[in-house]
Amino acid sequence: MDYIKDPKRIETKSMEIIAPYIEKYNLDAATAKVYSRIIHASGDVEYAPFIRLHKEAIERAKTALKKGADIYTDVEMVKTGINKKRLARYGGTVHCIIGDDKTRELAESEHITRAIAAMRIFGKNLDGAIVAIGNAPTALFEVLRLVKEKNILPAVIVGIPVGFVGAADSKKLLAENDKVPFITVEGTKGGSPIAAAAVNAILYDME
Amino acid sequence: MDYIKDPKRIETKSMEIIAPYIEKYNLDAATAKVYSRIIHASGDVEYAPFIRLHKEAIERAKTALKKGADIYTDVEMVKTGINKKRLARYGGTVHCIIGDDKTRELAESEHITRAIAAMRIFGKNLDGAIVAIGNAPTALFEVLRLVKEKNILPAVIVGIPVGFVGAADSKKLLAENDKVPFITVEGTKGGSPIAAAAVNAILYDME
Repeated sequence: MDYIKDPKRIETKSMEIIAPYIEKYNLDAATAKVYSRIIHASGDVEYAPFIRLHKEAIERAKTALKKGADIYTDVEMVKTGINKKRLARYGGTVHCIIGDDKTRELAESEHITRAIAAMRIFGKNLDGAIVAIGNAPTALFEVLRLVKEKNILPAVIVGIPVGFVGAADSKKLLAENDKVPFITVEGTKGGSPIAAAAVNAILYDME
Repeated sequence: MDYIKDPKRIETKSMEIIAPYIEKYNLDAATAKVYSRIIHASGDVEYAPFIRLHKEAIERAKTALKKGADIYTDVEMVKTGINKKRLARYGGTVHCIIGDDKTRELAESEHITRAIAAMRIFGKNLDGAIVAIGNAPTALFEVLRLVKEKNILPAVIVGIPVGFVGAADSKKLLAENDKVPFITVEGTKGGSPIAAAAVNAILYDME
């Protein structure tokens, strides 16, 4: 079994293979890194035409992260996937409360998903922070409600929930919002590694 | 913002939407659940024709899990994604040592990936266990080497690493092996939620 065992070579080779698939979009270097990492995390070059980045998303995220902004995620897998050591360099941490008792209690009493309950409990903490959603469309709908109704303004929303019920609609709403810069992927595809990859691409591109 | 907020309804509706895409494969009920959960986790109906299940994979996994078999994963995200409460009903736990010092030390001294080092350290523990790989092709190559050279025989290998360097090759090798039942997806696509979804589909189908 002869295969590449050196992590640096695997990474370099991967990015070389991905490069031709995003060439035609004429992306700046920082944006190309987000595209590459998303394709790398999914193994799916067909993501490229569906990625949507607000023009200020990367710079706003970097500025916030440098000031020590925290990251709020919908599910544990997104938290697991984010490079927390890199984030800690700037003082930030990652929060996820989907499994907390208070989240479950609110979800049960209000007949809502735990993802909605988690975002509602985060509330004002999302102001100026990075939101990273990789699983639950309902979390993204709720954050967009908080933006609209409560004027809670995250620095950036990385909103890449997945699935066939609400994912495409919630991401469309995110891309149409004019208050918060965003990174998203149109349609049903997405997931925790995709959201984490977008966040990590930005973290790896800092300093 | 009018959208479905009830988790049970979201789940049911998702599975209803996915069903027509897998109808033509004439799958038995347990296999259909694995297909559905993979498509659900990826938001990608195009997975269907590339899913490969050894005919004994599900039954062997269930038998092993009922006896309290543990699950060994390549990365933390797969561990995070697996329903550990369900697994604990039968006495099993999930192991991941990708971030351990001993794994890093072996990787550095041998110039191999940490994923290879982790599988090598697991070694004999993989005998009779469930292996779930959702990220690193090198982990899957190493497990297949342990099968071939050391006669270490997991009950089932859920091998769904992702990416452009080694993923497709390692999964092809897995599907060609005649010693261990497997669940895999041909090609470059895959990932931690996909591997976890396959494992969870089996756990949810037990008892």
